[in-house]
Amino acid sequence: MLIAYQGEAGAYSEAAVGGLFPEATPLPCPTFEAVFEAVEGGVAARGVVPIENSLFGSVHANYDLLLAHTLHVVGELHLRVRHCLLARPGTTLAGVQRVTSHPQALGQCQAFLKQHLPGAAVVPAYDTAGAAKLLAEGGDARTAAIASRRAGEVYGLAVLAEGIETNAQNYTRFLVLAPEPAVPPAGADAKTSLAFTFRANVPGALFKSLAVFALRELDLLKIESRPRVGSPGQYYIHLDVAGSQADEPVRRALDHLAEFTAALRVLGSYPKGRTA
Amino acid sequence: MLIAYQGEAGAYSEAAVGGLFPEATPLPCPTFEAVFEAVEGGVAARGVVPIENSLFGSVHANYDLLLAHTLHVVGELHLRVRHCLLARPGTTLAGVQRVTSHPQALGQCQAFLKQHLPGAAVVPAYDTAGAAKLLAEGGDARTAAIASRRAGEVYGLAVLAEGIETNAQNYTRFLVLAPEPAVPPAGADAKTSLAFTFRANVPGALFKSLAVFALRELDLLKIESRPRVGSPGQYYIHLDVAGSQADEPVRRALDHLAEFTAALRVLGSYPKGRTA
Repeated sequence: MLIAYQGEAGAYSEAAVGGLFPEATPLPCPTFEAVFEAVEGGVAARGVVPIENSLFGSVHANYDLLLAHTLHVVGELHLRVRHCLLARPGTTLAGVQRVTSHPQALGQCQAFLKQHLPGAAVVPAYDTAGAAKLLAEGGDARTAAIASRRAGEVYGLAVLAEGIETNAQNYTRFLVLAPEPAVPPAGADAKTSLAFTFRANVPGALFKSLAVFALRELDLLKIESRPRVGSPGQYYIHLDVAGSQADEPVRRALDHLAEFTAALRVLGSYPKGRTA
Repeated sequence: MLIAYQGEAGAYSEAAVGGLFPEATPLPCPTFEAVFEAVEGGVAARGVVPIENSLFGSVHANYDLLLAHTLHVVGELHLRVRHCLLARPGTTLAGVQRVTSHPQALGQCQAFLKQHLPGAAVVPAYDTAGAAKLLAEGGDARTAAIASRRAGEVYGLAVLAEGIETNAQNYTRFLVLAPEPAVPPAGADAKTSLAFTFRANVPGALFKSLAVFALRELDLLKIESRPRVGSPGQYYIHLDVAGSQADEPVRRALDHLAEFTAALRVLGSYPKGRTA
């Protein structure tokens, strides 16, 4: 079974595929859109995309793709992001003069770099696994890359240090995409993800949209308003609520919500994800 | 008067400084943190940082810095992001074989690239102005960079095409930071930005936090829940509400909100920003 993800071998998305589908074969794709297309076209059985990071927030590009395509969310995973300092075999920590990675990863490891490599130049790269790949292909013995342990294995780099991020509580939430819905049964420990906009001239629309859940004692797990491109002052709402569409209160709340929303889209109901 | 911003000369943040303070001198800083420090240390009179993009969402790093520092939000601006294809003088559109820029900018101009430069290689760079700078310093006549018109002027590059983004409605919202608050008077066309978490075991806390505004007919302009790092299942709320702290209903709503929130921080009241 092929599972599509965006990035190079050794990317954190590949680790999410491994955590979700240990028996499957990860299929690397150059873009998020290519992941969606691989699943829609039947090339891959499932797609796995990041939707939210505890430090950096939502990946709106993937919300847009969810709305532009017809796939369903059928699962999720919270992946702990754990950075390693990688170098070509033979390089020692003391010999490192340049450190390269994605700017976010460099920022997350700033305290380690200040303490252990105060004189090293910091060189931003497009992504973490890509930095490791580039170093393996053409880098010199004075350069190190920050990426996953797995990226080190894939590209034959040595691990000089592990868990070098300042904040150990760095998680990325991934969604599993499928061509068909897989709604958990009523009573399951599930969540349901929605996106919607409001009809024109509904006073207090945002408050009402939360009331339909609060009045039925359904827990909101995430809410985000987002400016609508081309419509100043209007926004999209991305919302996760506890429960499955198979639960009667959830179904009634969604019916109620449709009374004053436009373009209400239920992205999927799925089991609450574990942490890997 | 010096106004601190993050990035190179020609960055979109520099354009935001120009739109907000046409008479002032922009002060480039290497990081967002350096912007905050420049204002706190009295080196710069104000700081200008991006907080939200219509296509890519919130810049959480700057919310974190707002919470970690004691500066006040005193203004905002919505800046239209308008990309140009830049090249060394003498390069023609037909001669371009490589295009470099920040991955987001490359993505935003994909339709233009497909139509006009279908064979060109796409090379990701750390940022837009940085890509232009690098091209000016060492690039060849077959490479083009995507950045602002201003970046072209700063680095002596020619504009091969302008407004090449697929979606013309691409805005970034910038906040103005100052050492002291500047609360608009009651009745002004203002907004107030807050951040807070909830006390433990308050049922329906998110719904209640919106009710304190809805019950006073105060419009919510933005809301975002964000996972709290290190506290699974808990979150921060970032919220903008119409009105100034000088307005009695806003003041009362904030008092009411404090009854069940923890770490409530009013980031500032400021005039609603114009679009540049």
